[in-house]
Amino acid sequence: MFAPVYLDHNATTPIDPLVLEAMLPFLRERFGNASSRHEYGRRARQAIDEARQRVAEAVNAHPTEVVFTSGGSEANNLFIKGAAATRKPGLIGVSAVEHPCVAAPARQLRKQGWELRALGVDEQGRIELAGFEQFASERPVFASIMLANNECGAIQDVPGFAARMKQVGAWLHTDAVQAFGKVPVDFRALGVNAMTLSSHKVYGPIGAGALVLDKRVELEPLIAGGGQERALRSGTENVAAIVGFGKACELAAGRMSADSERIERLRARLERGLVGQGVRVFAAQVERLPGTSFFSVAGIDGETLVGKLDRAGFAVASGSACSSANPEPSRTLMAMGVDETTARGAIRVSIGRTNNEQEVDDFLATFAQIVDQLGRLAAVSA
Amino acid sequence: MFAPVYLDHNATTPIDPLVLEAMLPFLRERFGNASSRHEYGRRARQAIDEARQRVAEAVNAHPTEVVFTSGGSEANNLFIKGAAATRKPGLIGVSAVEHPCVAAPARQLRKQGWELRALGVDEQGRIELAGFEQFASERPVFASIMLANNECGAIQDVPGFAARMKQVGAWLHTDAVQAFGKVPVDFRALGVNAMTLSSHKVYGPIGAGALVLDKRVELEPLIAGGGQERALRSGTENVAAIVGFGKACELAAGRMSADSERIERLRARLERGLVGQGVRVFAAQVERLPGTSFFSVAGIDGETLVGKLDRAGFAVASGSACSSANPEPSRTLMAMGVDETTARGAIRVSIGRTNNEQEVDDFLATFAQIVDQLGRLAAVSA
Repeated sequence: MFAPVYLDHNATTPIDPLVLEAMLPFLRERFGNASSRHEYGRRARQAIDEARQRVAEAVNAHPTEVVFTSGGSEANNLFIKGAAATRKPGLIGVSAVEHPCVAAPARQLRKQGWELRALGVDEQGRIELAGFEQFASERPVFASIMLANNECGAIQDVPGFAARMKQVGAWLHTDAVQAFGKVPVDFRALGVNAMTLSSHKVYGPIGAGALVLDKRVELEPLIAGGGQERALRSGTENVAAIVGFGKACELAAGRMSADSERIERLRARLERGLVGQGVRVFAAQVERLPGTSFFSVAGIDGETLVGKLDRAGFAVASGSACSSANPEPSRTLMAMGVDETTARGAIRVSIGRTNNEQEVDDFLATFAQIVDQLGRLAAVSA
Repeated sequence: MFAPVYLDHNATTPIDPLVLEAMLPFLRERFGNASSRHEYGRRARQAIDEARQRVAEAVNAHPTEVVFTSGGSEANNLFIKGAAATRKPGLIGVSAVEHPCVAAPARQLRKQGWELRALGVDEQGRIELAGFEQFASERPVFASIMLANNECGAIQDVPGFAARMKQVGAWLHTDAVQAFGKVPVDFRALGVNAMTLSSHKVYGPIGAGALVLDKRVELEPLIAGGGQERALRSGTENVAAIVGFGKACELAAGRMSADSERIERLRARLERGLVGQGVRVFAAQVERLPGTSFFSVAGIDGETLVGKLDRAGFAVASGSACSSANPEPSRTLMAMGVDETTARGAIRVSIGRTNNEQEVDDFLATFAQIVDQLGRLAAVSA
């Protein structure tokens, strides 16, 4: 039986068995193309409509505001490129700690004449207000500021930024992929014009996500064609994944409060155990996601630590999975002003709803052994 | 039990039970993010690598030429927009019978200064050589010509067009979504620079497709971010769907020859039965996909016919599913010079590997009854 302890829930989550159960009929006998005008098609369409309702309810949006995509990366690219395509090039801003799927499309826009501002963060990972205010005063067209960071978990004051952007007539998009399912996410209360969600971070399948979109925002589609999703996202709808996403949203809405409380206690237990081990926890002074712990051990390489933990049966990350192929130190930590040596020592533990106290205690014991061993090796080679 | 006779395999196909079996572990315990550097991640990565090998083998390409996407629409948009983004605006061409997910992104390019030529077809749906030759002589940058049409099934001489495009230093992309799995598709022999495939048309799941890409073609990504798929398609890989796509390709490679022979016999049986019923079969004089029959009954509305067949337990289409929400007559038929009244009467039967003679005979009997009834109604109201 292959079952290392999984402590990497910010990278992806296992599909909840109830979610898979909801999906299976659509992978078997209910296989229609939702655009088909026969019984198979109508049943697929109906399932998508129900899922749309569930996603909308979970984030207090209207179902017609939900645009299904293949996932969070596509939704972020759809907003950034799609909004830019309907406006004259001007100033846009994204925070310095955005996921690459916000930062990279924003950089692509520079070739088309857009000016891109990186909104800096403080040493706790929170956006610096002075820099944001300066940006807001320069007639920006739009900005994208994540609700919670995927690496350190820091939560931004998105409602505040949204209000200010509204005053200056600019749109605000927020990547809520990591926040959703862990802290309350209310599209109306946030006051943003657009918001990205992903299914596979909330115990739903990979292959579905959404851009929740204020209909006053005009977008060009990234994927044009058959006209699905109000012509904002063409392509045969991934019915099973969308149904799973809907179910995952319904479950998240009901469970989040109790889950997050329990998960936060597990993280407190973890971080208490880490205190005696020369560990520095990032973003510990600000409001952050309940299950995320991003920390560094002085003088020890994060990649090495992740490899040793893996062999010892614990799955953790040295940063975001999407840049794990990248040997560079965490962009988030560099933006927070952390020195490169410390940043290279960072590892991320992200706790999920199936983890328990025993797993945390086992992790702490193994971690102490490995750090001790690596510390002695370092002393010998020094 | 809900089980109308499914005769709409060009819209989507049921997932083969062996494909679903291959996918299920990745929807359950093998749930990792393929970019993660731990056991869960490595196993996901390995599964994607194996699937890439299977897809490449099925179309005689190299695995490194396979770029996985969320499906055919995305792959077509990736080529059209991605290729255009690396070149100075010039002339491009797409056939007049392309799927909307080729035609629509090509039209979007006009806003950026590109000149778009629609390559006309003859009354059998084949591209007119004189028009193509004229286009080729005008220094085009690239073209996109589908291998087989989704509605009438007509197969184009893609190797011939590819050779001519090469002579003039232009790229050729082909949408092989409908051809793949039904007729031999060999990336090398076709000689194209890029080719689109889709999983859910070959008994694989919705949610996976590929752009098979000659590496000399430079593309900008449509979805930028974490750098997955050689930075041509970012976003967490849909491992289960990709594994299913790989399995479907493997099965298709082994079964295609026998399946297509049997399916072609079923279509011949169908069309023999239709002869006495005042039916006109489109593209019947040219090489076309074995299971596709696109035809029209004089004086009867296709939508009405599809609705009545649906209620009688037969799932067929009035045209492509992706434009079924669109009350316009088939673009393919209009391009073929079919008059609008005849075009509005069109219905498409697309036979798949699970259909049998009894189903064809039952369809013919029901069809005759409905046509007779509609004909008498028309006579009364006339």
